[in-house]
Amino acid sequence: MSAEERVGDVVADVRPVDGDAAAHARARHDGLLKPPGSLGRVEDLGAQLAAIAGRCPPPVPSRPAVLVAAADHGVHAQGVTPWPQSITTTMVESFCRGCATVNAIAAATGAQVAVLDVGCSGEPPDHPLLRKARVRAGTADLSAEPAMTREQAARALIAGEGVVTELVAAGVDLLVTGDMGIANTTASACLVAAFTGADPAAVTGRGSGIDDATFGRKRAVVAAALDRHRPDPADPLGVLAAVGGLEHAALAGAMLAAAAEGIPVILDGVITTAAALAAVALAPPLRGYLIAGHRSVEPGAGAALDHLALAPLLDLGLRLGEGTGGLLAVPIVVAAAEVLTRVARIDDVLPG
Amino acid sequence: MSAEERVGDVVADVRPVDGDAAAHARARHDGLLKPPGSLGRVEDLGAQLAAIAGRCPPPVPSRPAVLVAAADHGVHAQGVTPWPQSITTTMVESFCRGCATVNAIAAATGAQVAVLDVGCSGEPPDHPLLRKARVRAGTADLSAEPAMTREQAARALIAGEGVVTELVAAGVDLLVTGDMGIANTTASACLVAAFTGADPAAVTGRGSGIDDATFGRKRAVVAAALDRHRPDPADPLGVLAAVGGLEHAALAGAMLAAAAEGIPVILDGVITTAAALAAVALAPPLRGYLIAGHRSVEPGAGAALDHLALAPLLDLGLRLGEGTGGLLAVPIVVAAAEVLTRVARIDDVLPG
Repeated sequence: MSAEERVGDVVADVRPVDGDAAAHARARHDGLLKPPGSLGRVEDLGAQLAAIAGRCPPPVPSRPAVLVAAADHGVHAQGVTPWPQSITTTMVESFCRGCATVNAIAAATGAQVAVLDVGCSGEPPDHPLLRKARVRAGTADLSAEPAMTREQAARALIAGEGVVTELVAAGVDLLVTGDMGIANTTASACLVAAFTGADPAAVTGRGSGIDDATFGRKRAVVAAALDRHRPDPADPLGVLAAVGGLEHAALAGAMLAAAAEGIPVILDGVITTAAALAAVALAPPLRGYLIAGHRSVEPGAGAALDHLALAPLLDLGLRLGEGTGGLLAVPIVVAAAEVLTRVARIDDVLPG
Repeated sequence: MSAEERVGDVVADVRPVDGDAAAHARARHDGLLKPPGSLGRVEDLGAQLAAIAGRCPPPVPSRPAVLVAAADHGVHAQGVTPWPQSITTTMVESFCRGCATVNAIAAATGAQVAVLDVGCSGEPPDHPLLRKARVRAGTADLSAEPAMTREQAARALIAGEGVVTELVAAGVDLLVTGDMGIANTTASACLVAAFTGADPAAVTGRGSGIDDATFGRKRAVVAAALDRHRPDPADPLGVLAAVGGLEHAALAGAMLAAAAEGIPVILDGVITTAAALAAVALAPPLRGYLIAGHRSVEPGAGAALDHLALAPLLDLGLRLGEGTGGLLAVPIVVAAAEVLTRVARIDDVLPG
């Protein structure tokens, strides 16, 4: 079976969430020991968790994990960022050593960290937290040629799917998506423009914080790449291959696997949300499993969330990636499930 | 010593936070293994935690607790809410049994729950989670007379101070403030208008969700009470006595005690934020210890936060109280401390 055929199988495993369970959760909320509606977005989230689980109350997530997919980008050669490409591999090593920001925030939110090298240009040492499934050592320069072949995009997607299937088998019940890849906000801007139809200039941001000259180059590269490849949003794998990153493809696969396993997926910033656009284009029912962790400063993230009709839980001015903003939303998701599980019914407490 | 003299001692124990430690934290953030500024509000929070602790990195909170102060309100007689007054005591019992919303969200965020009966009209049974320090069985009707005497307000404040001093001695290192009191959004609106100078109509909300007729009565009651008492914001204890609640006074004392002990305080919604206005008026350095957990739907909460120049961390459409919105911010506070503690310095990781 080709990798692309395997993608088709993964897509077919994503079933729509259960609207009846969501309605049950809403009715349950109205009968709990609190003024109806007084938990606002937390009630919406509880209904979504019930829909994902297909039952109410939904299970309380107890084993959240963040998957940080890492890869390099040939478009780095165009000078779209001041950071050297080797940082991607260095950061993968830092994730494994536990000294990066994602590790600190995972500790604060009770999540485990898993790292996937799906296309680093360097060679991180083996480590128990690191899965190696490198499809190629970074993409080609998307400003000059397709970033990768369709088959490579499909293989990267399947790599992400495989890691999540393995995590879920080990007990993980809530997936946070994270990324690492120097220059990957450039590819993300291309993906967001391709899938949403937005003006490339409007969805290209300053990523890690670049100067005006670099920002100008980055915008020109994104616009030219879209002109060159004219990616067709009706062919999501083709879009990923033309202008995406290996980590975007892997994250799309990770999301599809989580949905196929019936567990919620928390998005982080512009990279994971761009990957979600591809994944939802492949499997529209996936959208019901997605939770927008936060609103990133990157403009492409907002455009992608709007396109997906997802409202972010947090808005803290983050633009780091690694899954950090998604992790900060984990306790809110857990709380939404706890409320439906632990809170008494008003009729059982108050005199009739 | 009178209770009011004891309040003076508590106020005197609140020292300004340490600006040098905050500056140290900001400099440290700029040298961590991430793009400078990429953690947005989480970096601001880290600097505040350093300022509170007087050192950088600040300690990582590991024993958060929510204190739910409960009391009844004589103004209930004016028909400002459809809920019977007995619900206050019933909810106190539910907090102790662990079946209320605050318990569910405390479980999701790793916090312990402490309950203070500082003025319920009913008689909750003894319970290990419940501290009883009832100053009186509910306030008088603030629309007709002062809600309580100055001495009672001072005693309620000292009751809150005492519970937090005890909690901190037992290891609590992060305080979330919560409330229970049927009709207490009416007293809160009076406090917010008194301390901020805002139009009473603009800071009176629908509380648990009331109909138009009840809302009209509530607005009229708030406006008339302010007219009758003309509370002087330069006399915070007098304002609390005239138009406040026993739980407001207790929460003010709780905040002052936490600050005196050097631990951060997370505010919840309109009741706790109204209490914070009184507490900051008593001890202006307290403001540096306060973290706005969320933006409540209640208009008075927003006005109070603006007056305190505090930006809320969350905005989830909550209007429940009990400390629920404050608890949801706990993991963000913990994360802010973890980042300053765990993340490597960029110079130690990246080649020069």
